[in-house]
Amino acid sequence: MPRLRKDSYPVLTVDAIVRKNSDEILIEQRGVEPYKGSLAFPGGHVEYGETVEHAVLRELWEECSVVATLRSILGVYSDPTRDPRGQRVSVVFIADYKRGTAKAGDDARSVSWMKIEDLRRRRSLLAFDHKLIFRDYLTWRNSVKNENWDYTFWSSKKR
Amino acid sequence: MPRLRKDSYPVLTVDAIVRKNSDEILIEQRGVEPYKGSLAFPGGHVEYGETVEHAVLRELWEECSVVATLRSILGVYSDPTRDPRGQRVSVVFIADYKRGTAKAGDDARSVSWMKIEDLRRRRSLLAFDHKLIFRDYLTWRNSVKNENWDYTFWSSKKR
Repeated sequence: MPRLRKDSYPVLTVDAIVRKNSDEILIEQRGVEPYKGSLAFPGGHVEYGETVEHAVLRELWEECSVVATLRSILGVYSDPTRDPRGQRVSVVFIADYKRGTAKAGDDARSVSWMKIEDLRRRRSLLAFDHKLIFRDYLTWRNSVKNENWDYTFWSSKKR
Repeated sequence: MPRLRKDSYPVLTVDAIVRKNSDEILIEQRGVEPYKGSLAFPGGHVEYGETVEHAVLRELWEECSVVATLRSILGVYSDPTRDPRGQRVSVVFIADYKRGTAKAGDDARSVSWMKIEDLRRRRSLLAFDHKLIFRDYLTWRNSVKNENWDYTFWSSKKR
């Protein structure tokens, strides 16, 4: 459990599971601590004055040079021990690849498309609680039969 | 647009749509500014060191004396102009009433169960972006036919 800072709030972050060709996912190898060298879904902090959906699309562009379309919110991960730097609450989006050649920027050492089956075999290399997030995504994928249905909402979502 | 504080982060909050008897929703009348006197779904700040699901259940108890079970995440609302005090990002849960006699505590002037149809007629009285949240909830309710399916995840959710 990280040290409690009683007069502060949890820091808000975003992460994305970006899909391509139905069975590939965008994965980065972290270039910085914590979890330097581990695998992770791309993401980062939400800046003051931007929406969570803006933040996740910005991070995908800055870290991976990828443009994506948001599909759904998988969940919100807020276990106070999930990040050793202090409490980070992550809104995790599911997104679909739109354009761009994946390449590493910012905090990523490398960025690549990985087959779901390969990631399943290498899931012990995932940083933070991303192993749990990946498991939840596989559950989501098996439950949501009709991908045209909308189940979650965000500020700029077309209604 | 609220004043931008470049060196700070958005503040994380939670709100809940709590259902009872399939057609009633827990509504509070706000006792404090902003939007004093307006209607709102109950909620509040996430404290450092607690999960979002802990925060929402704690707020329901403190503000409304109600115990509920979390059902799903409706969405994440992060428009930087949604709260005049500065950016608040709200994770909105859908929950089912479990026990407790609704009564006002903390920031609420009064708390009551309101029929969905009544709330629809009085939706112009809703504070913040809760009118949008209510509209999204009605869409969710119409789309999710099988309520036993799980579409969203959080840290302490049983998997």
